[in-house]
Amino acid sequence: MRNCLFCNIANKKRPAQIVYENKKIIAFKDMYPLAPVHILLIPKKHISSIVDIEKKDIRLMGELIFTAKKIADDFNISEGGYKLLFRVHHHGGQVIEHIHLHLIGGAPLSEDIHPILNETKPSKGGDKAKCQ
Amino acid sequence: MRNCLFCNIANKKRPAQIVYENKKIIAFKDMYPLAPVHILLIPKKHISSIVDIEKKDIRLMGELIFTAKKIADDFNISEGGYKLLFRVHHHGGQVIEHIHLHLIGGAPLSEDIHPILNETKPSKGGDKAKCQ
Repeated sequence: MRNCLFCNIANKKRPAQIVYENKKIIAFKDMYPLAPVHILLIPKKHISSIVDIEKKDIRLMGELIFTAKKIADDFNISEGGYKLLFRVHHHGGQVIEHIHLHLIGGAPLSEDIHPILNETKPSKGGDKAKCQ
Repeated sequence: MRNCLFCNIANKKRPAQIVYENKKIIAFKDMYPLAPVHILLIPKKHISSIVDIEKKDIRLMGELIFTAKKIADDFNISEGGYKLLFRVHHHGGQVIEHIHLHLIGGAPLSEDIHPILNETKPSKGGDKAKCQ
């Protein structure tokens, strides 16, 4: 996808601090880290969201999880632990419309997830980076 | 695992509000929901944590993600969106030592993940449910 930030990172048209790459997956440091280790893993193939995965993507999704586990080993954060998170669409907080798995760790993590009350619905296209 | 809460839910020795089941995976409502929809998906096979997955588990991990996506469809929360979360070990906030994927949605979600400063280390075995 020409205007997709993560496709452009995958095909090296945009810079990123890449920490791992194979034929199907690329992983790089999040530009806005929430913790000492915050890495994004993406499939090189463009899939907008978890909502759009099909049966044929099952293996690829498993490889994303397994690769995250291996990267956590490489970063020596496995013993302490970490979070693996997919944000999906607006309610889930997804900003870039290309599947990405957050690997967050390197410290004990506080986590607070709860419904937003009285949320004002954003205007169409207001808060999302588009992949077109 | 005899004393593992989630193994006992998988083999029907402990009750749970089951929403989906197949040969390898079972999904049930979280007893302490963070949002209108909060479902846990577990492999029936006992694996303590994402840290312990092996290459042979890649397909199973992909099936957990794909099943979560299908359950989200069934609960009509796909259009709005949701979060998929694995907590891993202590830093990640894992409490039950049997892999479980959180499917959280049904409302716009606030999310705050950050390192805990000056955390007091818990005594050994203090805050974890054990699977033995």
